[in-house]
Amino acid sequence: MEKQIQVTLPDGTVKTFPAGTTPFQVAESISPRLAQAAVVARIQTTQPAAATVTAGSEADSKTASEAAMYSAADPGAPRLVDLSTPLEEDVQLALLTEKDPEALKVLRHSAAHLMATAVLELFPETKLGHGPATDAGFFYDFYRPTPFTPEDLKLIEGRMAEIAQRNDKFVREFIPREEGLAEFKAGDDFMKVHFIERFTQPGEAISLYRNGNFVDFCRGPHVPSTNRIKAFKVTNLAGAYWLGDEKNPQLQRLYGTAFFSKKDLDEHFARLEEIAKRDHRVLGKQLDLFSIQEIAGAGLIFWHPKGAMIRKIMEDWMREECIRRGYDLVYTPHVMRVQLWKTSGHEGFYSQNMFTPMELDDAEYRLKPMNCPGHILIYKSQPRSYRDLPVRYAELGNVYRYERSGTMHGLLRVRGFTQDDAHIFCTPEQIEDEVVACIDFAQSVLTTFGFMDFQVELSTWDPNDRKNYAGSDDKWNLAISSLESALTRKGIAYKTIAGEAAFYGPKIDIKLVDVLGRLWQLSTVQFDFNLPARFELEYVGEDGERHQPVMVHRALYGSVERFFGVLIEHYAGAFPLWLAPVQIGLVPISERHLAYAEKVQQQLEAAGFRVELDRRNEKMNAKIRDFTLQKFPYVLIMGDKEAEAGAVSVRTRGKGDQGSLPLDEFIGRATTLIDTKSGDL
Amino acid sequence: MEKQIQVTLPDGTVKTFPAGTTPFQVAESISPRLAQAAVVARIQTTQPAAATVTAGSEADSKTASEAAMYSAADPGAPRLVDLSTPLEEDVQLALLTEKDPEALKVLRHSAAHLMATAVLELFPETKLGHGPATDAGFFYDFYRPTPFTPEDLKLIEGRMAEIAQRNDKFVREFIPREEGLAEFKAGDDFMKVHFIERFTQPGEAISLYRNGNFVDFCRGPHVPSTNRIKAFKVTNLAGAYWLGDEKNPQLQRLYGTAFFSKKDLDEHFARLEEIAKRDHRVLGKQLDLFSIQEIAGAGLIFWHPKGAMIRKIMEDWMREECIRRGYDLVYTPHVMRVQLWKTSGHEGFYSQNMFTPMELDDAEYRLKPMNCPGHILIYKSQPRSYRDLPVRYAELGNVYRYERSGTMHGLLRVRGFTQDDAHIFCTPEQIEDEVVACIDFAQSVLTTFGFMDFQVELSTWDPNDRKNYAGSDDKWNLAISSLESALTRKGIAYKTIAGEAAFYGPKIDIKLVDVLGRLWQLSTVQFDFNLPARFELEYVGEDGERHQPVMVHRALYGSVERFFGVLIEHYAGAFPLWLAPVQIGLVPISERHLAYAEKVQQQLEAAGFRVELDRRNEKMNAKIRDFTLQKFPYVLIMGDKEAEAGAVSVRTRGKGDQGSLPLDEFIGRATTLIDTKSGDL
Repeated sequence: MEKQIQVTLPDGTVKTFPAGTTPFQVAESISPRLAQAAVVARIQTTQPAAATVTAGSEADSKTASEAAMYSAADPGAPRLVDLSTPLEEDVQLALLTEKDPEALKVLRHSAAHLMATAVLELFPETKLGHGPATDAGFFYDFYRPTPFTPEDLKLIEGRMAEIAQRNDKFVREFIPREEGLAEFKAGDDFMKVHFIERFTQPGEAISLYRNGNFVDFCRGPHVPSTNRIKAFKVTNLAGAYWLGDEKNPQLQRLYGTAFFSKKDLDEHFARLEEIAKRDHRVLGKQLDLFSIQEIAGAGLIFWHPKGAMIRKIMEDWMREECIRRGYDLVYTPHVMRVQLWKTSGHEGFYSQNMFTPMELDDAEYRLKPMNCPGHILIYKSQPRSYRDLPVRYAELGNVYRYERSGTMHGLLRVRGFTQDDAHIFCTPEQIEDEVVACIDFAQSVLTTFGFMDFQVELSTWDPNDRKNYAGSDDKWNLAISSLESALTRKGIAYKTIAGEAAFYGPKIDIKLVDVLGRLWQLSTVQFDFNLPARFELEYVGEDGERHQPVMVHRALYGSVERFFGVLIEHYAGAFPLWLAPVQIGLVPISERHLAYAEKVQQQLEAAGFRVELDRRNEKMNAKIRDFTLQKFPYVLIMGDKEAEAGAVSVRTRGKGDQGSLPLDEFIGRATTLIDTKSGDL
Repeated sequence: MEKQIQVTLPDGTVKTFPAGTTPFQVAESISPRLAQAAVVARIQTTQPAAATVTAGSEADSKTASEAAMYSAADPGAPRLVDLSTPLEEDVQLALLTEKDPEALKVLRHSAAHLMATAVLELFPETKLGHGPATDAGFFYDFYRPTPFTPEDLKLIEGRMAEIAQRNDKFVREFIPREEGLAEFKAGDDFMKVHFIERFTQPGEAISLYRNGNFVDFCRGPHVPSTNRIKAFKVTNLAGAYWLGDEKNPQLQRLYGTAFFSKKDLDEHFARLEEIAKRDHRVLGKQLDLFSIQEIAGAGLIFWHPKGAMIRKIMEDWMREECIRRGYDLVYTPHVMRVQLWKTSGHEGFYSQNMFTPMELDDAEYRLKPMNCPGHILIYKSQPRSYRDLPVRYAELGNVYRYERSGTMHGLLRVRGFTQDDAHIFCTPEQIEDEVVACIDFAQSVLTTFGFMDFQVELSTWDPNDRKNYAGSDDKWNLAISSLESALTRKGIAYKTIAGEAAFYGPKIDIKLVDVLGRLWQLSTVQFDFNLPARFELEYVGEDGERHQPVMVHRALYGSVERFFGVLIEHYAGAFPLWLAPVQIGLVPISERHLAYAEKVQQQLEAAGFRVELDRRNEKMNAKIRDFTLQKFPYVLIMGDKEAEAGAVSVRTRGKGDQGSLPLDEFIGRATTLIDTKSGDL
């Protein structure tokens, strides 16, 4: 009797088919439309079965992800397979359509094969490396002595479209390893030979994929046929040494991306363009906000006057808000003796992230990578009673951390930055209120700076790894439940991630969502059970006994530099009125109107506005254009009519020409906007 | 015929006397009263004459001041002599009385002899070192195996008084060097022997002073007799190795001071007491303003909440004032590559004052000792036109400089400090206005912070040492004349000190005078002709050509840390209302009045006041006392009467109880005081 298998569908339906039935046939049995829509299948064998293909060695963890391309994963785990894979065992099966992110990755992998096919047709002497999907698309490594030209890229893209039209099926084949090796060796395909030797065992069958005449050593899966690859682009070319070793031949890595629809592809490139336009490094230069100076070193920020004005506003706001919320400001030195870093433990577990020591005649000193030990010394400088708690120390602390050269990125990844750092020392009873206040403060930071959406993660310990955490069970449990209650009290949805806490305590991370929907990790509220013990912190309780206070680190901007970088990209450099370094550009229509413009400037400056007057002998429109390029919120134009009426003609950055307004009225309205930190008039 | 000499008096009178006449006799010839009042004489020989005593070797500059004690100075220069010195040549002569500061120094030198006389009478086994006058008094080094006790000091002081009563004359004697040496050697006076051998030549006559039985190797001069030493005190004892070498016997250095009157002596000690009470290190601890933490290192300041609040106010005021005065704020990194310090020249000429380098994988880095190179990089980050000038960059920059361990002193001498640093880049035509603006700003800083008096020094070059200065003659002349014109325009008296300028440019230093009349060097306005050349700074002039801008460094607080230290001492910790970290202490008379006190607290905080409420269950007077010790400007007391009337009972720090005031009225008055930065209600 023919073997029957049971296929369990995602809705729980169980269907029986003859063994060897493919997911495509299962789809057809449900609806022909589904069969057409399906891209790939996800299966999980209901009972573990012997794998038909033996897994390759995955011992070398550095190449585990590479290995995964060629080797079978645990056959009991869910895995993606071609729609044409014969099903031989009982399985749970899901048919993935174009809406599924995993299907997109399969499409891109197939597109990599398509690109390799086109390259071999156009440049038959080319040898193939490997060609995986990536988060943003795919690439393929080629070896060919002649570099590809930009015209070649166009040619390749055109040929890919032709091949897609041919609608060749992606067919999987298994051949004996030795046969495959012999074939690739005959073709001088040194990279394929390497991959087969590295990722398969002698005696195994190896997996190949064929589309038309193109054959590749590959485990798949793939889309059913080449015409599923409709929307794609070959984007760029980069160099890479074979196996990362510069003694080896240099490969040409061709990058591309693919989507299921032209619309998705276009949106992708529009978004990239938008991201590029908002790049804080580009805008930082264009708007003269900051620089990084080669001669001074990488990852060190020079705040130019306009950026510094925004920083001043950010810092002033933060300091006033800290004071209003019951924090005490402190200032601590930037260098401290190594002895202190030994006590804090940084010299042991954080040394690699610190700048190297400086030797003075009396001791070794290091730049601070964190502000905590400094704040702790102030806490310890006198006896504390429960009546003094909570003690909340806040500092805009400049910290320096070593990052490898080449890893820095504008304001987002730097070696020197300013933490809006605070440490709260409190009793266990005070924890929950303190955490609520921190979350409240964090929300206030985000909404004040124009971020309307955020995501919260609660990182807790891995209770199976107990011994690797500092602090008692009681403390962990109390801290975690306080964090949970605080989030609940604030009505905030959050995701708990077990095992993500630092060894010294659980934390809440708040990720803001910017105008492009990107997530940025900035604010954090973090318990520390380690430092109070290391520094033997104490307070005298109501019971007259000595207790160890609970210590909470919290940073809301996180890093002033990084937050500023995110702000630049979020606003694309068009800062709201209250943050704009220059708020108002003044354009006298001609030299005759300069005197009136100066009077307006004085009045505006006396009212506290940041103003720039264009005194050049240029055409009015040129002046307006230059101010507009600088993204000033307002441009005020002044001619005879305005001078006579004591008025200004108002152009806003957002809405253009707003007609004439009496100067007083303009000042009144703009002042309200600043007081309320709102947008345009 | 007896030789006659001509004596020219300060008023120009010339008198003729027989050779050998003493200054005392000259005084008597003028008036017996003057002869009684005179302490010592200053003479200058009208025509150079052969010195009667050969000058000793002064080759060793390290001991030049020591040598001056024993050796004759240039006989043609003005010098002090005893009133009993026979005058043998024509001289200009001035008789110094007790009002003359030089006379005070002579008195103190004589007092040192008096102390040595007392010590030898009481402890005859003692060997004598040397005993000079100092700025604040005198000391004498003694060698004696038994340490002096505090009781011994009293005994010595008592014996000094007795000897003073004896009214022994101070008599100068000359004896052959070998005779003197033999005598001191016989007495085992190893220190005297050393001094004679070191400071006199074989064959010379050596100078001794005798009072009663006491004889000392000494060049004088002295007061006429011991009873001129009326008001003195033996103050303290310190140890010192003979010749500063710890292998030598340890000497006991006895310190004392002396004045011409008991009143002066009392005032001196009252002033010392006042200075000690105002010591910013003592007040810093007492008022919990700042600390220096052994474990973190010497010379590094931790600003505690109350000190940090004052710093915040100082910094906020400075930043707003900079903006108002047309400066642009900037921020630059604390560490920069050694390559930059090479370009700036600091790596060469300032390296010894810098913290040692840190090595990162890509380069060496050093903590900045100055902010100039950072500001210069921002200036250089884009082309500048004459239209952009003056460019004024201001930063509260944290700089770090190496000071030897043991040389640090509270906030006044530190290793890390915050400069309110600015750099002005301008055209030569703009210099004078810029300097005037700097002086104006400096005056505003001083008066705002309560310093009503200051002294100005203009440091210029030494034209004889031309080659050791950077910059052209034109630049120096223009800069110096601009500084002079600026000071004149501001109507400010100043002292010119030639040769005191740095090699890179002339400067103005402004020294403030504190409430005790002490001078503090803080503000400076300094030209720099060196860095613009080193960094090849440029601007395009109206002529379309490239020019080098003039660069001015200026700091007004100088160092925020040091200025704060001076402020603490100036105000003795009783800061004016606008600066006080806590402005108002609230004292509810009993627990019943706590609710009303909390309401008052809320209203005051909403009005922007910094308030502390004493919630303890203590007596009212204890609470008032504690707030008074903390030097809060106001203490408000609240009982039934106040709660009922919506009032507060006001105590000011300066004037005590001011009776009851409606809360609104108190808020109104106090707000006015803050707005005008005035003192008490």
